[in-house]
Amino acid sequence: MPEFFNVLPPDEARELLFRHITAVLPAETIATQQANGRVLATAVTAPHALPQFRRSTMDGYAVRAADTYGASESLPAFLQVVGEVPMGQPAAVALGVGQAAMVHTGGMIPETADAVVQIEQTQTVSGGQSPISTLQSPPFPFEIEVLRAVAVGQNVLQVGEDVRLGAEILPAGHSLRPQDVGGLLALGLTAVSVVRRPRVGILATGDEVIMPEETAVPGQIRDINSYTVAGLVELAGGVPVRGGIIPDNFDALATAAANLLAETDMLVMSAGSSVSVRDMTVQVIDGLGAPGVLLHGVATRPGKPTIVAAVGGKPVLGLPGNPVSAMIQFDMFGVPAIYRLQGVQTMPRRGLVWARLGQNIASESGREDYVPARLQDSADGLLAMPVFGKSNLIYTLVNADGLIKIPLNKGGLLAGEWVEVRLF
Amino acid sequence: MPEFFNVLPPDEARELLFRHITAVLPAETIATQQANGRVLATAVTAPHALPQFRRSTMDGYAVRAADTYGASESLPAFLQVVGEVPMGQPAAVALGVGQAAMVHTGGMIPETADAVVQIEQTQTVSGGQSPISTLQSPPFPFEIEVLRAVAVGQNVLQVGEDVRLGAEILPAGHSLRPQDVGGLLALGLTAVSVVRRPRVGILATGDEVIMPEETAVPGQIRDINSYTVAGLVELAGGVPVRGGIIPDNFDALATAAANLLAETDMLVMSAGSSVSVRDMTVQVIDGLGAPGVLLHGVATRPGKPTIVAAVGGKPVLGLPGNPVSAMIQFDMFGVPAIYRLQGVQTMPRRGLVWARLGQNIASESGREDYVPARLQDSADGLLAMPVFGKSNLIYTLVNADGLIKIPLNKGGLLAGEWVEVRLF
Repeated sequence: MPEFFNVLPPDEARELLFRHITAVLPAETIATQQANGRVLATAVTAPHALPQFRRSTMDGYAVRAADTYGASESLPAFLQVVGEVPMGQPAAVALGVGQAAMVHTGGMIPETADAVVQIEQTQTVSGGQSPISTLQSPPFPFEIEVLRAVAVGQNVLQVGEDVRLGAEILPAGHSLRPQDVGGLLALGLTAVSVVRRPRVGILATGDEVIMPEETAVPGQIRDINSYTVAGLVELAGGVPVRGGIIPDNFDALATAAANLLAETDMLVMSAGSSVSVRDMTVQVIDGLGAPGVLLHGVATRPGKPTIVAAVGGKPVLGLPGNPVSAMIQFDMFGVPAIYRLQGVQTMPRRGLVWARLGQNIASESGREDYVPARLQDSADGLLAMPVFGKSNLIYTLVNADGLIKIPLNKGGLLAGEWVEVRLF
Repeated sequence: MPEFFNVLPPDEARELLFRHITAVLPAETIATQQANGRVLATAVTAPHALPQFRRSTMDGYAVRAADTYGASESLPAFLQVVGEVPMGQPAAVALGVGQAAMVHTGGMIPETADAVVQIEQTQTVSGGQSPISTLQSPPFPFEIEVLRAVAVGQNVLQVGEDVRLGAEILPAGHSLRPQDVGGLLALGLTAVSVVRRPRVGILATGDEVIMPEETAVPGQIRDINSYTVAGLVELAGGVPVRGGIIPDNFDALATAAANLLAETDMLVMSAGSSVSVRDMTVQVIDGLGAPGVLLHGVATRPGKPTIVAAVGGKPVLGLPGNPVSAMIQFDMFGVPAIYRLQGVQTMPRRGLVWARLGQNIASESGREDYVPARLQDSADGLLAMPVFGKSNLIYTLVNADGLIKIPLNKGGLLAGEWVEVRLF
């Protein structure tokens, strides 16, 4: 039994929407190096330990730590260097008592060694610099003096210290970043199972709306929302599917919406802001299937008349026609819905910057306000200057670096207060 | 005459690098709707005003404001509604004294009107609801009562209120976001001149490094840095050009570096961390051309041994081989260099979150430390838990949400302190 509300605060509205997103997108296997921004369909476990062999973290000598105990500058330990472990090769050298092997940073440690003495803690018996700092290997064996004792394990990366064999390295629903791709490739995982990118249908409606390439006659405006929404869809990992511009006609809109929803995973309709057009959008969405419209508005400004809906487990949004509201509301509901469709449970954290407010802002208690702001450096630190403007004006967003959020329970903010600016 | 330094703090190191980035990338014209993330090659001015005609911001009646002066609920003004302005069409209605035209939100205002009375401030003479809230037009003329006066310009968006004809809407060097694309399309600017994406050559070096798809024998490790760097290059708007893995051989590396630099705009070499290999990288970079190596290290941890260089106006970086240092240093120098190559003067602001530190962190004064941290919600708010680990361990970054920066002049941070976490 679906719940119906008139207006809810944004957080509750989002939770309500999330409860109705039950569509499951199929997984697909892709090359790991192409997987930045994609979401894991299944958890990944380590097929082997990392590192797979003990590695030196220093340039120096692999030793048996016990051979260095008590060593000091006044009473060095003498060791015989019997060979070198070349980079990229197994450490074939076997160390007897009092013996050491030359090793490079990242190189393998011989089985019979248990620590590394870094080069700076050694000298040749003649007092000269240890020969390890050149690529040219010296003739073996030769003797070195160790000037400080090392403990077992010192300067050694142990097997599995980065990742243990079989450990879950990344959970299902994780959105992959460059370091995650690196971590998978380090384990030889060159293919990965990810959730198919959600396809997001975008419809613009309005008798007054024309394509950007058309010449406007008085009374006409060009479609903006299809493109700003498409840009946000791509940034969130979705694939925008633009369905064009539909006139203000119930049958035309109902048919276009049903067709576009059938071939996509989510539908976004941007309609005019007049009451008649909004009522029509509500009816069209309710006609698409159950549960239909969940919410007829959100307690925010701009964007109160946003329609939050779901049909057959797919999110459906009816955005206000004016571009500022449309973009802010899509950011608030559409972007999280795209992540949710991919199985992401924890939304990516939003980047914020703190700045001093440059001007008073009035607000209304009981409503979350979002005020576009431009950031500027000043002698007193970073200033957030509100960009005031009707929400019909796209350039209030073009001229802004982010949004200042004024919480539900606040009546406004004063110049000089510290505010959080959510970066676009 | 190039300056040479041994080690500099990160900010000064970046400024030094910037001074040597003089390569100019050519402009190319692309479709505006494909231009998200691209950087404008030239400033853009408005080819026409926006809006191009006066628009209503409300559902209601376009009026001559003077006809409503003095109107109140007890003494309404009577107006004759002589027609409707349909959406998307010129306002052909001419208003005489005492006349009004039905208008919808976003619709055009007749030339003879100078304000809009919103529908909620009107009623029909019979006291019923005004007929504007349906898509069905009523028969004209009919009479309405206006219950509150409006001022000239009220509820009207003026011509050019969003953008004036000829105004510079976006400067050269601006990195385009979805709202910028929307703003350009609103003006009919469907093509835009942007800077060609910088091509960034990436070389991995090391006898021990193998391709991710290869099976590692003891002593070998898979290439990570080529892929984490490539991911960061893409996020910054560049095109990664991977040059593969080069053995630790001066001639091989010098040839590969020269060839890759010739066909790209920037070169990144990730070499092992042993002293001999690092010295070879310095020599190879100096051999590529003037000015060569600018800086042999940066006062940070991790990443001190980063080589900052420029050749013929192109940035060149020598990154430490270990993956944590490589990624943090590339983020610190490589990402800004990619923006700079595109002519971006003001770097995009980094997203931060504030959190309480979950554990003490020791640091060393005179060095900027970057400690990976995982964010977790707690009863006391957001906690930043340091992810300690040697910088050889890629999973310290996989397990982190961002970096805590410990400034140059700080000896450490205490648990419970508020810290800034720079999100990855």
